[in-house]
Amino acid sequence: MSQRRAEVVGLGLIGGSIGLALRRRGWHVSGTDIDPARAVRALEMGVVDHAGPDTAAEITFLAVPVRSVPDAALAALASTQGIVTDVGSVKGSIVEAVNHPRFIGGHPMAGSEQDGIDGAEADLFAGSVWVLTPTPTNDDDQLNLLRSVIVDLGADVVALAPEHHDALVAVVSHVPHLTAAALMRLTEQRGNEHRALLRLAAGGFRDMTRVASGHPGIWPDICVENRPAIVEVLDGLITSLQDVRSLVAEGDRAGLLTLLERARAARENLPSRLIATVALCEIRIPVPDRAGVLAEVTTLAGTLDVNIADLEIAHSSEGERGVLILIVEADAAERLRSGLLALGFRPAVLPLQ
Amino acid sequence: MSQRRAEVVGLGLIGGSIGLALRRRGWHVSGTDIDPARAVRALEMGVVDHAGPDTAAEITFLAVPVRSVPDAALAALASTQGIVTDVGSVKGSIVEAVNHPRFIGGHPMAGSEQDGIDGAEADLFAGSVWVLTPTPTNDDDQLNLLRSVIVDLGADVVALAPEHHDALVAVVSHVPHLTAAALMRLTEQRGNEHRALLRLAAGGFRDMTRVASGHPGIWPDICVENRPAIVEVLDGLITSLQDVRSLVAEGDRAGLLTLLERARAARENLPSRLIATVALCEIRIPVPDRAGVLAEVTTLAGTLDVNIADLEIAHSSEGERGVLILIVEADAAERLRSGLLALGFRPAVLPLQ
Repeated sequence: MSQRRAEVVGLGLIGGSIGLALRRRGWHVSGTDIDPARAVRALEMGVVDHAGPDTAAEITFLAVPVRSVPDAALAALASTQGIVTDVGSVKGSIVEAVNHPRFIGGHPMAGSEQDGIDGAEADLFAGSVWVLTPTPTNDDDQLNLLRSVIVDLGADVVALAPEHHDALVAVVSHVPHLTAAALMRLTEQRGNEHRALLRLAAGGFRDMTRVASGHPGIWPDICVENRPAIVEVLDGLITSLQDVRSLVAEGDRAGLLTLLERARAARENLPSRLIATVALCEIRIPVPDRAGVLAEVTTLAGTLDVNIADLEIAHSSEGERGVLILIVEADAAERLRSGLLALGFRPAVLPLQ
Repeated sequence: MSQRRAEVVGLGLIGGSIGLALRRRGWHVSGTDIDPARAVRALEMGVVDHAGPDTAAEITFLAVPVRSVPDAALAALASTQGIVTDVGSVKGSIVEAVNHPRFIGGHPMAGSEQDGIDGAEADLFAGSVWVLTPTPTNDDDQLNLLRSVIVDLGADVVALAPEHHDALVAVVSHVPHLTAAALMRLTEQRGNEHRALLRLAAGGFRDMTRVASGHPGIWPDICVENRPAIVEVLDGLITSLQDVRSLVAEGDRAGLLTLLERARAARENLPSRLIATVALCEIRIPVPDRAGVLAEVTTLAGTLDVNIADLEIAHSSEGERGVLILIVEADAAERLRSGLLALGFRPAVLPLQ
């Protein structure tokens, strides 16, 4: 069996970590960067086998700024026959701009896009969530292939519709980042008190503003590309803070306690990144002769927060019609079965030993 | 020399840590709690030598909820001849309500008031900031004594006027806490997407909402007691977020970059909690025959963020008039000298070897 080949475009923290992780698993990795010195550095560090493009790449990973992804994707689709995927923090505009059967949008929720290649680690994705945003345009087998490679890097793959991804990251990433900046701005506005103020800043404040210490360069693009979702979430946050202000101004102890108790309960529901050993189920789904069924099913699973532990497409001998077999946590099987029924599928759930 | 005696009222995380820290330094510590079982537990844990009050206490530390401090302070002032201090997160209303020469408001900015005695640690205050909010009512010698005990626990003492403290903690603690709750509420409002959303919550979101996981019980009181400052800072944050929303809605990349670059610079200015080895200066200040001069000078130092490394009052043999000797970082000496001149003092700055 010949060595599998990948190319990484953009050799920062994420691109470098993908290179290291693939090489550790036996892949041949080529890498390019807009800055040729960085490609040389990647070669020296053992992040890539080869500094330069690879027209034979089975998968091309685009780890470039959000704004540069569409052009980079079109170039990679033109020069290779393989899958092209990206790691950008915004997906809707990118997927729409590229719109190609071999392009599958991705977003590893790991590390920070803000550091350089020297922070690259082969284990960066272990235990993290890696979102894929397939569309019905995508080929099922290629989606399955990309998914299996990413799972092999140690990540949990969550498939979401591109617009859904963008709405969710506005809540858990983009607006929190902007809020950290707004909190830091409050300290600046105290003028002469600034220094005394910062000495009082204990752990909580440091935690809350840590993201503001990252390199700001990537954020203007993210904000512009995900503008509608960010504006909507900011409006929600402003309304929420106005409600809090009213509770404080009115001295409404009971209302404040309710607010904080609910926040605490929600915070405690933040799932652990560690996957527990749990009972698994098999779900068998006869799939019709139509493209994009895998994207449809995996996106449903992402929306319902059903983690797909394993996945196989068993084609029938007569042709395209086949059976999609998903392995999921037993607790989540009924949720996914109901969702599949609502979409017109006929799933069967079988317990696994 | 007889053993020094202290009493701790309220045996939670902070009260328990004060007990452990004092006992390690040879003090005899008594402790009481509204819940007698907790005092027994403190005795078992070695947090206190004695479960019960101590009318001979040189210092009584009130580690009770903010709302309970004034009554607890009046009781301790009536039953002992010593200093009474508290650890509450709001100071103005407490200091005004108690208004006694032997009551000095305090606020250790360490740990979390939200955990119980089982989290108590003798080293909790090492390297942390402990605010004192003396007023001109306070006796200089007693302020000096309390200050030296707290420095001995490993904390940096920062003296601030009570209202100034309250304005600053609204910025670095109270409003950030409420903001974390508002961010968690955003995730709740997504309804069915809630679970999928929380799986995408990576390190940044976890950091920003960590404070929301603490016990909410103490916060309604804090919000009510510090109402004016919190409302003012919340208004500032809401305005700031509205500005951010405009930048995003307008797609103003340059404006967003400026905002985030300034936030990053401010974040990088957060002083380390580690004290560097720095050159020190001595400032000698002839002090007039009036009470409260130490409170005035140390509060000025707090406002100007001048860390007082050591402090001595040398009384002249003729009576009350004397010399206040401060040891401060050389870099900060000129700042403090100017402030002292502006208040009518005649400081002399001398380098130390």
